[in-house]
Amino acid sequence: MKGTFITFEGPEGAGKTTVLQKIREEFEQKGIQAVFTREPGGIRIAEQIREVILNKENTEMDARTEALLYAAARRQHMVEKVIPALNEGKLIICDRFIDSSLAYQGYARGIGTEEVYSINLFAIDGVMPDLTIYFDIAPERGLMRISGNDGREVNRIDLEKMDFHEKVQEGYKQTIERFPDRIKVINADQSLEDVCRDVMEVLIPYLK
Amino acid sequence: MKGTFITFEGPEGAGKTTVLQKIREEFEQKGIQAVFTREPGGIRIAEQIREVILNKENTEMDARTEALLYAAARRQHMVEKVIPALNEGKLIICDRFIDSSLAYQGYARGIGTEEVYSINLFAIDGVMPDLTIYFDIAPERGLMRISGNDGREVNRIDLEKMDFHEKVQEGYKQTIERFPDRIKVINADQSLEDVCRDVMEVLIPYLK
Repeated sequence: MKGTFITFEGPEGAGKTTVLQKIREEFEQKGIQAVFTREPGGIRIAEQIREVILNKENTEMDARTEALLYAAARRQHMVEKVIPALNEGKLIICDRFIDSSLAYQGYARGIGTEEVYSINLFAIDGVMPDLTIYFDIAPERGLMRISGNDGREVNRIDLEKMDFHEKVQEGYKQTIERFPDRIKVINADQSLEDVCRDVMEVLIPYLK
Repeated sequence: MKGTFITFEGPEGAGKTTVLQKIREEFEQKGIQAVFTREPGGIRIAEQIREVILNKENTEMDARTEALLYAAARRQHMVEKVIPALNEGKLIICDRFIDSSLAYQGYARGIGTEEVYSINLFAIDGVMPDLTIYFDIAPERGLMRISGNDGREVNRIDLEKMDFHEKVQEGYKQTIERFPDRIKVINADQSLEDVCRDVMEVLIPYLK
C-alpha cells in the first residue's frame, strides 16, 4: 500500500484529542493533505457494533465478547476507511488503534495481551501502523487533567480507580517495549504548544 | 467442569435439526436430562450481535468482521449458557459450534481455517466439546433434500452455488481429520430412524 498509516495512543487525560485537533488545523494551514479518523469513524456497521458494546443495559457482557466486538468494529473501519485511503496513497491518522486494545482490554482488563493481540491480528490482517505516537503522562497527572477539564464530560472510564489507570499505563509500557521501532514516545506533560511541536517533529519525516 | 458438552455438525440438508428434535423427544421419554441449545440461544447480547450479522442492509460487511461477530456471539452464549450448564454437571447439546465456523467461514469463505480457529480459541477459552457428531451427506444429496423439503423455507445459503456446498464439505473433512478423537462421523443419508439409532449409539457412553 502506498499511503502512510499513523496512530495516536495514550491513557485518558493525556491530551491526545486536543493535540490532534491542533495538528489538523496546522495541516490545513500548511496545506498538508491527511485523513483524520477514529473508530468507529462513521462506518455504519462499526457504529452498529459500538451500539451493542456501549448499550448500558448490556451489563452481563463478558470481557472477551467486548474485545471481539471491538476487533469486529476495527476490521470494518479498516476495510471501509483505512485501507482505501492507504491504497490511494493518502496519509491517514487514527486516534487510538490496536495498542489501546492491548493496554485496556489485554492488560488492564486482564484478558492477556497475547490473546487480544491474536484477535486483532486477525482484524487488521497485516496492516499495522507505520508510526504510532504515544502520549506519555503519569496516571495521576492524567486523572488530574480530566477532573480539571470543564469542557469535557467525565466518563465511566475516568471514574474508575487509579489502579486501573496504572494498569493501562503498564499495558502501554509493555506494548512500547514490544514495538520500539514503531512507537515513538512524546512527553505529554507539557504545554499544548510544546506537545504539538514535539508531535510535528516526529511527524515530519512521514509527510510527503 | 463436571458436565458434558456435545455438538452436532454438518452441511445444509444433512437433517441435523430434525434428528435433534427426535433425540430430544427420545431423551424426554427415557427421562434423560439434557440442555438443548443453538447459538445465539436466546442470549440477549448474542441476539443483538446476530441482528447486526443478519441485517440485510449490511451488504458491505467484510468476511472477517462477520467471523469476529460470530465469535463474539459464541462467547456470550458460552458464558451465559454453556459454561453454567457444564459447571452444574449437566449434559448440554449444541446445534452447530466451532467446526461450523472453520468449515463455512474459514474454508468455504476463504478466510483460512487456522485464522478462524485462532479467534474462536479466544472465544471458547479452552472449552472444547467432549464429543461432536458429524452428519455426513454428499453435497448434492443435501441440496436435493433442501429443495424437496416443503416444510422449511429455502434460505440464502441453500441458494448459493453447489461449489460453495462442496467447499463446506471439504472444510468439514479437514476439520474431521484434525480432530479424529472428538468428531464421530455418522451416515446421514439413511432413513430418519436409522440416523437416530446411529446417533443414540454414539451418545450412549456420554449419558450418565
